[in-house]
Amino acid sequence: MWQNKAEEKRQSLFDAIPTDWILSKDISDSLPKNLTKIPLNCGILSSLDIEITEIDEIEELADRIARGRYSAVDVTTAFCKRASIAHQLVNCLAEICFVEAFERAKFLDEYFRSTGGKTLGPLHGIPISFKDQFEIKGRETAMGYIGFLGRLAERNSILVESILQLGGIIYVKTTLPQTIMAGETQSPLLGVTLNPWNRSMSSGGSSGGEGALVALKGSICGFGTDIGGSIRIPCCVNGLYGLKPSSGRISYGYVKNSFDGQESIASVIGPMTRSLKNISFLLKSILDLKPWLNDPNVCPLPWRNDLFNEGQMKPLCFGVIRFDQCSQLSPPVQRALQMSIDALEKSGHQIVEWDTTDFPQAIEMAIKLFTADGGKDVQEALNLSGEPLLKTAIVGKPEDEISVHQYWKLNAMRRDFLLKYAEKWNQSQNLTKTGRPIDGFLSPIHPLPAFPSDFPLSAGYTAVFNFLQLSLVILPITRVDLQLDREIDSYRNSTKLNEIDEVYKNFYDDPEKFENSPIGLQVVCRRFEEEKAIRMAMILENALKSSFYSE
Amino acid sequence: MWQNKAEEKRQSLFDAIPTDWILSKDISDSLPKNLTKIPLNCGILSSLDIEITEIDEIEELADRIARGRYSAVDVTTAFCKRASIAHQLVNCLAEICFVEAFERAKFLDEYFRSTGGKTLGPLHGIPISFKDQFEIKGRETAMGYIGFLGRLAERNSILVESILQLGGIIYVKTTLPQTIMAGETQSPLLGVTLNPWNRSMSSGGSSGGEGALVALKGSICGFGTDIGGSIRIPCCVNGLYGLKPSSGRISYGYVKNSFDGQESIASVIGPMTRSLKNISFLLKSILDLKPWLNDPNVCPLPWRNDLFNEGQMKPLCFGVIRFDQCSQLSPPVQRALQMSIDALEKSGHQIVEWDTTDFPQAIEMAIKLFTADGGKDVQEALNLSGEPLLKTAIVGKPEDEISVHQYWKLNAMRRDFLLKYAEKWNQSQNLTKTGRPIDGFLSPIHPLPAFPSDFPLSAGYTAVFNFLQLSLVILPITRVDLQLDREIDSYRNSTKLNEIDEVYKNFYDDPEKFENSPIGLQVVCRRFEEEKAIRMAMILENALKSSFYSE
Repeated sequence: MWQNKAEEKRQSLFDAIPTDWILSKDISDSLPKNLTKIPLNCGILSSLDIEITEIDEIEELADRIARGRYSAVDVTTAFCKRASIAHQLVNCLAEICFVEAFERAKFLDEYFRSTGGKTLGPLHGIPISFKDQFEIKGRETAMGYIGFLGRLAERNSILVESILQLGGIIYVKTTLPQTIMAGETQSPLLGVTLNPWNRSMSSGGSSGGEGALVALKGSICGFGTDIGGSIRIPCCVNGLYGLKPSSGRISYGYVKNSFDGQESIASVIGPMTRSLKNISFLLKSILDLKPWLNDPNVCPLPWRNDLFNEGQMKPLCFGVIRFDQCSQLSPPVQRALQMSIDALEKSGHQIVEWDTTDFPQAIEMAIKLFTADGGKDVQEALNLSGEPLLKTAIVGKPEDEISVHQYWKLNAMRRDFLLKYAEKWNQSQNLTKTGRPIDGFLSPIHPLPAFPSDFPLSAGYTAVFNFLQLSLVILPITRVDLQLDREIDSYRNSTKLNEIDEVYKNFYDDPEKFENSPIGLQVVCRRFEEEKAIRMAMILENALKSSFYSE
Repeated sequence: MWQNKAEEKRQSLFDAIPTDWILSKDISDSLPKNLTKIPLNCGILSSLDIEITEIDEIEELADRIARGRYSAVDVTTAFCKRASIAHQLVNCLAEICFVEAFERAKFLDEYFRSTGGKTLGPLHGIPISFKDQFEIKGRETAMGYIGFLGRLAERNSILVESILQLGGIIYVKTTLPQTIMAGETQSPLLGVTLNPWNRSMSSGGSSGGEGALVALKGSICGFGTDIGGSIRIPCCVNGLYGLKPSSGRISYGYVKNSFDGQESIASVIGPMTRSLKNISFLLKSILDLKPWLNDPNVCPLPWRNDLFNEGQMKPLCFGVIRFDQCSQLSPPVQRALQMSIDALEKSGHQIVEWDTTDFPQAIEMAIKLFTADGGKDVQEALNLSGEPLLKTAIVGKPEDEISVHQYWKLNAMRRDFLLKYAEKWNQSQNLTKTGRPIDGFLSPIHPLPAFPSDFPLSAGYTAVFNFLQLSLVILPITRVDLQLDREIDSYRNSTKLNEIDEVYKNFYDDPEKFENSPIGLQVVCRRFEEEKAIRMAMILENALKSSFYSE
């Protein structure tokens, strides 16, 4: 029975948590809506554990380890404890490797000692978490499927290997939805992963385990994947920073996936973390290893400072996306967008409205490509255990299946769309005052600030950028504010454009439902312009800060 | 009737050639086996035409134009005339745009005059030829299909546009086989393109029109395409230099193709020309235009001098490929390979034997991917006119068709093969004396020095590198020599390994059959290492020269 196997796996995760790190019944029986303060007050973390895990900057933490202030074991202890607490609060872990993590930490401490204070690399002693698609040698990669239990990885994914080479520590893998094709995180295997800011809401998906874990500071940085919004939606609803790079920038080598071999719209890997500087630091560190020598699918593009600096030209011109032609933005998301626009304009940057009338065509093609196998890949995986299919998964039905001949034609249409889009982008030079085409786009990620599990997905603001192969950075902008966001009627009572728009507007009946929910936006640049997107997100964050302090 | 349409098209090509440029009956009735001297002696070319078209180096020709020694009209006249002669000798042109070429040349001369001697770009006044997959606005792109006649291109291909932007002149498009999936150049539309060195042989394919035209010096450089050997085989049998870059280096934007949208093994574009310096000059010039801004499928990799310089490290280590596990090398090709090895070793470079036992697996996957649509794409194109399918075309039959689900699995197998191959390459560090993995491979291109039309194709030395997405450069090494290559029995009488090997060995019954046939080899580097491959080919060419002079 698949239920027994799932139960066994869940139990094994709890068994891997030392009893000292189990929340008291008092706490677990009376959890508040917002769970983010519990790690600090539950009595399990020492003041050192708190000090360590509250540091947002990887470079700062690495520097303290490198100067001997914390040992790798100290840091590993702190994160293993806080990740354990997080798992008990929101159900975010899919694999626990504490034993190996401490072994590794001891090795690093010994290396540090015996070399008179040398570090193995820029991530020496830093625990890094991974979504449960990554392979860790000897461990399961269940990927949300009960049928995949028991298959032990024969080798580490290339990125896992890179993190080790940089001195990092592997300690947990995180939850994802069955099929990976959902905007939430739920599976018959591991159940639902909750949102730490509001446990009646979903942690988003598909990288929702990472989103929840990093938000609870059980990780300083984790790696998720994104094929239609799977890094962005969890970053957005958990208040995190993230990078969805272009395919071909970070190695997907030996990372498991649904629809393995579907290359028309490639899933990509990116960090989900607590600062923009972490993103640039990690990307640079990974690229310094020349991953293209191990994975020919990675383009030999080193970290490019000139492109990073392009992101600080002044003025920049941002194209703004206000409507994906399907789902209107709820008031707090509108507010986040307008705050950002105002702050950028106040800092001297230009904003131009961007035409999105071609978005639905892109989304339609994307869905046809995702479902082109008629759902056979997913069905094959489900058949292994007999478990039921997740209701919210976006996967093909038998009637969606097309022939390879039709599939190739669809690929050609997609390519032509991308060529036309590049032309449209280049022609935006006529809209700007900079003498250049638009530098990047400012776009919402999701129409609502938060949503529960089993909720229909609107991916029109996210999947379109996968389809277009663009690089982008996510950053948190604001939170739902019961004062500022008390007006709900204009959105709620406006014309319902379609089924999802109707569900969303009906759901938005009370701002209190969304209290504290973070709202993030994405800064979108051209393919392979990750460096520029990071810098432009920094510009936006600084503009918001100075705008805040000047008010 | 498709026959009439074909006849009409052929006639229209001859009609586009001015009568003064038509070969006399004397000459055309008594053509020798080797046609390469006819342009010089047929009386059509002036001494200026000959002087201009005999220049092999684009930079030299461009320099003479830039210094006013030749006008663009002079150069256009010379190449239009010589291309016309070539077409009458070997049937290599698919589209003739002389009128537009002279208009363009006059414009360039006027620009030069009115600016007091400025050029429009580094190719100012240089005519460049294109295989008949490229789109020239207002012109047909028949692509070897009668059914495609009458469809006029709505815009220029991105590369055509780039060549114009660099100051180049568009004057002809060249023949290719129906389906483009053949190692020869033949179609019911335009017939057979012959080999200028030996008119009983094929000009190779699929870029055989370019191969023949450039060999007859009716073009200084043309652009072909390669998905399994289609640049290399014609370069090899016509004695030319060429580049098969990685996909994502030169834009394929708005270039027509068979199996359009088949992206698993991407067809790529490269120059076919008369020197290695032309290749670096052209690639650099094209990349200087930042084609990635117009085509997101192009990686933003500028010309990299550091990588070019990596190709001149000393000693280099070349892996040598002697056998693709399917077709043994005929003696002249063996000799070309051994000459190269000896010359490199004499110059202080290291040679290591490379294991190719995994080649057949790659070829098997490649064929499955190429035929995955069951031949529907080709059938659709044939149905437009009712013309018959070319016998030698490698296209799917209905029974080859697979589902999208199986296609994705095949993609995943291919990707895993590439990852394993990178690992194998990296581990070759243990075989070298350089402290690095093998720098690049030296490989044959075809087992025979030449072959006629309607001959079965052995693509085991070429298609494997498309499958592996590697970058490579072709260069001519030697020619069949009736003295050196008189021994035929060891090859001819050796065990026939399979049907093709048997056909080849039986065909190799007399060295005179192959007299004068050029033999080329390929230097293969990693994906996106075009600069290094060019430099390593230069090293090989220099080693051969100094080896020759020291004997």
